[in-house]
Amino acid sequence: MTEPSDMTEPFDAVDVIRTKRDAETLTAEQIAWVVDAYTRGAVAEEQMSALAMAIYLRGMDRSEIARWTAAMIGSGERMDFSSLSRPTADKHSTGGVGDKITLPLAPLVAAFGVAVPQLSGRGLGHTGGTLDKLEAIPGWRATLSGSQILGQLEEVGAVICAAGAGLAPADKKLYALRDITGTVESVPLIASSIMSKKIAEGTGALVLDVKVGSGAFMKDLASARELARTMVDLGTDAGVRTTALLTDMSTPLGRTIGNALEVRESVEVLAGGGPQDVVELTLALAREMLAAAGKDDVDPADALTDGRAMDVWRRMIAAQGGDPHAQLPVAEHTETVVAEDDGVVAALDAYAVGVASWRLGAGRARKEDPVQAVAGVEIHARAGERVRAGEPVLTLHTATPERFARAREVLAGAVAVAPEPERSVSRSGGAVVLDRITAQE
Amino acid sequence: MTEPSDMTEPFDAVDVIRTKRDAETLTAEQIAWVVDAYTRGAVAEEQMSALAMAIYLRGMDRSEIARWTAAMIGSGERMDFSSLSRPTADKHSTGGVGDKITLPLAPLVAAFGVAVPQLSGRGLGHTGGTLDKLEAIPGWRATLSGSQILGQLEEVGAVICAAGAGLAPADKKLYALRDITGTVESVPLIASSIMSKKIAEGTGALVLDVKVGSGAFMKDLASARELARTMVDLGTDAGVRTTALLTDMSTPLGRTIGNALEVRESVEVLAGGGPQDVVELTLALAREMLAAAGKDDVDPADALTDGRAMDVWRRMIAAQGGDPHAQLPVAEHTETVVAEDDGVVAALDAYAVGVASWRLGAGRARKEDPVQAVAGVEIHARAGERVRAGEPVLTLHTATPERFARAREVLAGAVAVAPEPERSVSRSGGAVVLDRITAQE
Repeated sequence: MTEPSDMTEPFDAVDVIRTKRDAETLTAEQIAWVVDAYTRGAVAEEQMSALAMAIYLRGMDRSEIARWTAAMIGSGERMDFSSLSRPTADKHSTGGVGDKITLPLAPLVAAFGVAVPQLSGRGLGHTGGTLDKLEAIPGWRATLSGSQILGQLEEVGAVICAAGAGLAPADKKLYALRDITGTVESVPLIASSIMSKKIAEGTGALVLDVKVGSGAFMKDLASARELARTMVDLGTDAGVRTTALLTDMSTPLGRTIGNALEVRESVEVLAGGGPQDVVELTLALAREMLAAAGKDDVDPADALTDGRAMDVWRRMIAAQGGDPHAQLPVAEHTETVVAEDDGVVAALDAYAVGVASWRLGAGRARKEDPVQAVAGVEIHARAGERVRAGEPVLTLHTATPERFARAREVLAGAVAVAPEPERSVSRSGGAVVLDRITAQE
Repeated sequence: MTEPSDMTEPFDAVDVIRTKRDAETLTAEQIAWVVDAYTRGAVAEEQMSALAMAIYLRGMDRSEIARWTAAMIGSGERMDFSSLSRPTADKHSTGGVGDKITLPLAPLVAAFGVAVPQLSGRGLGHTGGTLDKLEAIPGWRATLSGSQILGQLEEVGAVICAAGAGLAPADKKLYALRDITGTVESVPLIASSIMSKKIAEGTGALVLDVKVGSGAFMKDLASARELARTMVDLGTDAGVRTTALLTDMSTPLGRTIGNALEVRESVEVLAGGGPQDVVELTLALAREMLAAAGKDDVDPADALTDGRAMDVWRRMIAAQGGDPHAQLPVAEHTETVVAEDDGVVAALDAYAVGVASWRLGAGRARKEDPVQAVAGVEIHARAGERVRAGEPVLTLHTATPERFARAREVLAGAVAVAPEPERSVSRSGGAVVLDRITAQE
């Protein structure tokens, strides 16, 4: 019952903030108004920030999350892929360290006649961004128009490009705010952020890769399962065939972290090689996407060995101005982290490796910062693997050697060598996929 | 372990926000840094807003509150009254509806040789501001220089004026932010806001009037007691002789709400008349201030009847350019709210009357809005008083008659007439002072 400071608005932002602050449920009208007014600038950044913290600490129920997501979709335009001759399937990962899966996955799925529109973002913090990785390829450009996206989907089958500013602009504004206000790791806010963009994008099928572990937003299986369930329900309710895999992010994916380094590893996978966990996760996600797109009688593993996926990759890179045969840039400066004792690598903490790579120059602290194509971390001995004292465990790469000290700082204690193997921390032999969440009947 | 976005700062604001968000204790260094960096602009408004909401929902312990208060004091200059020949005593009210007590209290206490520096603010929301009230007096000005304040304290004994911008600037910035972000009603934030200004002001003694009830920040006795205890401890630890009275704010103080209306009622009290509750509270607070200033052998009631307090009032108003004999402005438009039945006024809700007065033009929604000197509410029948159907309960005053409808809206249901008196809601015979909190031994 306060006095709206602006009589032309139906609600007062302070009342909406107080409602959530006091653990009450926001009404449909309050949610629609506050998201719209924030996008217009009638609700101030500092007001949305207080509301985001109240949502973080008080939560939202299922109907509030659905309404919040709908309001974010409604803040912008929607894409339409119905004119395509192919079915569409998309993948979204909640972000991890060394997670380059989109790079081999999109051309792999497209090789089976499915259109894969991967509208991606740039990295922020310790997790890398798909666009930053591809920009390590000479000539490749991230920005395409709507009609270029449609044309490339029809002709090549796969597009990895920057999401246009028109999709869910409320989310873009809110995401930047959450990033600087400690309100990122909230299930309702993460779920509505991801799903508003994916639903607005207009994909027919969606597979979510929800990461669990030290290198992920979700540190434990229970919260990851809650996030996955929330997103699968949101997608299903919006008519998108949605499933989720919960996958391990306690230790980095593959043996490389950093932009050019990860492109190189992705090309290895497309050539039929690459680290086992990257191949396993790529195939698991491909099977989900193909099944959701109605292609459940094919084995994606075939297309990695017979060159079909590599062929789509080359056409996809070339279609966006990149030279798929060009030499990738290499760091001028490297340093090695060696094992101090004989034994088995007991742990290789994903978060620490992610932050180290970031500090070497692979990531950015603010969205306007540049990234280095060459910076990153190469892993020689993974968790569960045997090393001798003095043998290299990691190689650190950077264009700016003054960054080595700060990268080593964060790695102190993150690389442990034990006399006996600890099975629980190993992924060499362990499963990447921990659980699968599907639409409820 | 995130990457500070600005390497020249010792902390990252997001880390500080996360600490409180996750219910941990902020360190002395974090608090000193975040308050200073916010004042400098290195911590953004949206970051402080998220931190304020986290503090609101997670609380702060006694040492955090003391450090936060010290950081706010340290953000600006301190005043020094040690050159005065009189002891100093100040009063602070947490804000209520019809709370004009400062007006008769300051000259009353000054009449006994105590210097009363009332550095006051303007009203925001449904509680009025002391400066807005005094500005209803033709010619009176709120702004004095430091040396004018000292001179008037020495010569007249009482000053009611605007606090300079130099005292606790961090608090000024934070208060404006809390007001628009739903983070006002937090014990740690209220206590540190009030006490940082009062300690920086340099008063030797301080009496706190902590309001309890619908018209106050603190709706119940337990939270008011917590706030009072927190503030008394903060003041005592800083060397200020501090006590607190918990006083009733379930129904308005006195019979008038609004700027010129409240000045008129205050002058009645100074002339030895006025409503019983206003007189009772004025005397109770005067006794606390006089005792804290070492004058416990005098009876302030004498100075209301023998004209000494009125004499100081007139000199105080004249010293700040006001004409104490001038006619106060009167509203061109009034409307009456009448009793619908015979009976006893069972309730007269302070919050509703406060909002009604605000909507009539006595208060402001934003700090840059003007207020009407003439607007407000006059109470004819208070809680516990007998009325007949058709008799006036309230008169509404405004310069802008289009405001009547919105004022009546908020009063619907706030004025209840019952066949039998309900003793619990009456103040006519009840006590205003509910409890007293003093320094712990």
